[in-house]
Amino acid sequence: MIEADPTLPVIRTSRDFAATPEQLFRAHTDPELFARWVGPDTTATRIEHWDASTGGSWRYASTHDGTEYRFRGCFHDVRPDRIVQTFTFEGDPDGVALETLWFEDLGDGRTRLRTQSLVDSFESRDAWLRSGMEVGVNDGYAKLERMIIDGAV
Amino acid sequence: MIEADPTLPVIRTSRDFAATPEQLFRAHTDPELFARWVGPDTTATRIEHWDASTGGSWRYASTHDGTEYRFRGCFHDVRPDRIVQTFTFEGDPDGVALETLWFEDLGDGRTRLRTQSLVDSFESRDAWLRSGMEVGVNDGYAKLERMIIDGAV
Repeated sequence: MIEADPTLPVIRTSRDFAATPEQLFRAHTDPELFARWVGPDTTATRIEHWDASTGGSWRYASTHDGTEYRFRGCFHDVRPDRIVQTFTFEGDPDGVALETLWFEDLGDGRTRLRTQSLVDSFESRDAWLRSGMEVGVNDGYAKLERMIIDGAV
Repeated sequence: MIEADPTLPVIRTSRDFAATPEQLFRAHTDPELFARWVGPDTTATRIEHWDASTGGSWRYASTHDGTEYRFRGCFHDVRPDRIVQTFTFEGDPDGVALETLWFEDLGDGRTRLRTQSLVDSFESRDAWLRSGMEVGVNDGYAKLERMIIDGAV
């Protein structure tokens, strides 16, 4: 589920996984695991910098059809139940999103992953939605589900 | 000037200083200078951690009437014309603002400092406005003006 808030420049996603909060936290903080699932099926991700701790930062490059796209940000908060980080696509260096991820324990080994991306204008938010982010989110989470089934996380 | 945007959960400030962009940048990135001017006249600030570079982080404590209030965040972007950082008051650890500061050269040794604080709800934004932030902003910038006149920056 991906939805745009009508009154806030926010994009929210929600997806339930057959995994514990600890597994999803690991999939978002371990750089080798993260690089394996993030983004569309057609891209490959290389981590360039990774310090997934409160006050740390990150940078990675995604390659699609021979072109590299770089993303970077800092980790405001890395807690077992929540990650807050900033996000910039370096092709648009003035654009910044504040991203929050919640790992909500549903019991029975299931976890709801909710995310929120906050930007400072509705125009930027709508441009993100039009950029094909839905493919990246859906492909990525499908890869993550297969990694969970395979016992890789 | 402090204003709340009617359509976005944003607080903006703007103030012109008789200083160069370089001086204002230094006043926001040098921890000893920053601690001397930030916040209300009635508080004293002690820097606990400070790495004012892209991907760095910060933390400080402000003491008022014997009580300490702690604030922290990470630096998403530290550029001569713009600083982007996160901001949390540790008394409300789930609240996070994305702050942007612009140093706009007006020529003749004058610079417009604009700031924007973005949060994810109008309720949080309005609570910040009611918390007395205006006193902190105005007192702080008045102290910074005196430091500029005194040649301390």
